[in-house]
Amino acid sequence: VTGGRAAHLPYGVVRLPGGPVPAVRDGDRAIDLRALAGAGLLPGGGWAEAPDLGRLLAAGPDVWAEVDAALQALVLDGRLPAGAVHRLADLPPPLLPVTPGDYVDFYSSEHHAATVGRLFRPDDPDPLVPAWRQLPIGYHGRAGSVVASGTDVVRPAGHRPPAAPGGAPDVGPTRELDFELELAFLTGGPPTAPGDVLSAAEAEARIFGVVLLDDWSARDLQRHEYRPLGPFLGKSFLTSVACWVTPLAALEAARVPAPRQDPPPAPHLRAAGGWTLDLTLEVVLRPAGADPADDDGSVVARTSSADVYWTMPQQLVHAASNGAVVRPGDLWATGTISGPEAGTQGCLLEATQGGVRPVRAGAAERTWLEDGDTVVLRGHGPAVGGGRLELAPVAGTVRPARGGASG
Amino acid sequence: VTGGRAAHLPYGVVRLPGGPVPAVRDGDRAIDLRALAGAGLLPGGGWAEAPDLGRLLAAGPDVWAEVDAALQALVLDGRLPAGAVHRLADLPPPLLPVTPGDYVDFYSSEHHAATVGRLFRPDDPDPLVPAWRQLPIGYHGRAGSVVASGTDVVRPAGHRPPAAPGGAPDVGPTRELDFELELAFLTGGPPTAPGDVLSAAEAEARIFGVVLLDDWSARDLQRHEYRPLGPFLGKSFLTSVACWVTPLAALEAARVPAPRQDPPPAPHLRAAGGWTLDLTLEVVLRPAGADPADDDGSVVARTSSADVYWTMPQQLVHAASNGAVVRPGDLWATGTISGPEAGTQGCLLEATQGGVRPVRAGAAERTWLEDGDTVVLRGHGPAVGGGRLELAPVAGTVRPARGGASG
Repeated sequence: VTGGRAAHLPYGVVRLPGGPVPAVRDGDRAIDLRALAGAGLLPGGGWAEAPDLGRLLAAGPDVWAEVDAALQALVLDGRLPAGAVHRLADLPPPLLPVTPGDYVDFYSSEHHAATVGRLFRPDDPDPLVPAWRQLPIGYHGRAGSVVASGTDVVRPAGHRPPAAPGGAPDVGPTRELDFELELAFLTGGPPTAPGDVLSAAEAEARIFGVVLLDDWSARDLQRHEYRPLGPFLGKSFLTSVACWVTPLAALEAARVPAPRQDPPPAPHLRAAGGWTLDLTLEVVLRPAGADPADDDGSVVARTSSADVYWTMPQQLVHAASNGAVVRPGDLWATGTISGPEAGTQGCLLEATQGGVRPVRAGAAERTWLEDGDTVVLRGHGPAVGGGRLELAPVAGTVRPARGGASG
Repeated sequence: VTGGRAAHLPYGVVRLPGGPVPAVRDGDRAIDLRALAGAGLLPGGGWAEAPDLGRLLAAGPDVWAEVDAALQALVLDGRLPAGAVHRLADLPPPLLPVTPGDYVDFYSSEHHAATVGRLFRPDDPDPLVPAWRQLPIGYHGRAGSVVASGTDVVRPAGHRPPAAPGGAPDVGPTRELDFELELAFLTGGPPTAPGDVLSAAEAEARIFGVVLLDDWSARDLQRHEYRPLGPFLGKSFLTSVACWVTPLAALEAARVPAPRQDPPPAPHLRAAGGWTLDLTLEVVLRPAGADPADDDGSVVARTSSADVYWTMPQQLVHAASNGAVVRPGDLWATGTISGPEAGTQGCLLEATQGGVRPVRAGAAERTWLEDGDTVVLRGHGPAVGGGRLELAPVAGTVRPARGGASG
């Protein structure tokens, strides 16, 4: 390692005997930030006393930079107190890094939006609505249903479209359960006041770091309910995020110029363009019945975040441009990331052309997810100082429906 | 007062010299619940130590009933310790009763949904989408932008529809600022786990109480952005709620049979029908320049909550029927409540037929809200034991745009 930067140190929350504490992961070890702050080895301010990353996020970018620099030095110099270091294998699974205030899901991958537009609105000559290239289309998801990687995905029930147009709905467990491959960021700094807006620089400074995110979706429920107010129960049952947040500072080497935008967006959005992240993202599917001990699953999609049309700062500038309140711990996701070719599509809706052409996962075929299937999202990119860094994965296993809506 | 029930005692949060405390309002007095709990006069459990109603909501219906009964007895018997009672006029304005976890806005008034459907989709033969009578259509709003009554409404900026179809968007402050007259409820009890569903009885038991809610809307921004994911910046800039929550227990006399539903909904929703609340709701508009000292404003709409198509328990059962997590402090609103006739419509979009026919407010005319206008939502209904009770009002004054999106 050169340039004063240690291995990738993503932030999360681990459970110690005394309760949950903020931590960073260093390979197979977790470093207890509360212990380090208590020993005077990290900047103070009380953020490390919180049971999650909420107060660190609220502390804002100056504190993030100080904490990051102090951690880098401690790890590089081998000066970590033994009591602050734990083997991850000895701890229970990590918790959600922070309970999100609001969760916004954008729709910023052009190939995804165009393909879904064609599938959901086959009679519409323009699969992208006119506003799509003018502003980052998005909606609010259910913050309370955001869970940590590893949480089971209970198959949701609801109203499926009627067999014939105008018929009675068909109520029961979804038949079209899907994953969505997404990258998300967490914001920090003090809450804005109602009516405040953010400049491009202010927005960028509020981005703490990124996580992989799986926005599980029930396509039949979504198709039946989404007009005119957007997705609701088709999405709100569960959204899984990775347990370790990679700080933006660790992704300097992954920055690339953002895609060209035509037509050029309005000035406040144009100012927030510039860079995006080029990360390789993968979806791994391990079908029901496969033994995790000897089947790691099959890669069913591999794509890049580099051609997501709207950048993270643009998404945040847009969302705040009407004076909406931005709070520390808010979660902002790209929407499904897809490329144009087969094998680059980040959800089954696209990969199977609406459930028509199955994809292959080892010996199995899938149009939609089946009970017992496990989906893992992975990501990697160039590390500062050379080599690659891996984003923390996000995984979930589908479990049978438990009741709820019934016909 | 007969039957052992005192005046209406709604719950909120007042600011005392030592900080915010849970309180109830008794006419022009606030009663400090932390002081009463500290003196052993209310059930314990630590909920009164919280700076808002969050822990009282989490404590669930058994505690709510005990607290309510104890308060009723203390007020009826005149046994309140003097130190626990404050004149509201001597205190700063109350705070938001609770920071909502998630905020869901339904679309449950049939007249509203049909009128808006005709205005937004004039070429569609069916203004109500087919799913509308099958399930309570709704979407997630921005919880972070929920504020207490009295907060200023800064005019939001954003992308207005182009002058001609296919043209460049027109970016700047909204020209179509609107109010929305809504009734909302707050839920409590412990958080559900992902995958849990709620029975009709479980859902009903989780409803703590109701508040008036104004879902401020920028119709031009909303019209341009809402396809296909629903309203986002057209709504997310601000949502105002009343400062005092009327517990459901105080509204027993306002219960009426719910509207007949044709076709009958699926069994889990049918079971949650039964009753609804018959409250008279009003919108008062005081135009810019009017002196609050001698102009209380004009009633520009008066309607009833009794014909909202989907009941509160149905809304909650539906939202949880896919296993979504329900948390204490979640906020659930009806959507705009409108009747069919002129003068009964709960937003300007409807009342002005899309900005075409102005409404009159005293000497002024309005198609949309202007800077300086004040909107107050009021409500009243029958009280237990006779007489009427007034819901706490929700008010906001429009202030000029501050920047943000610009063309």
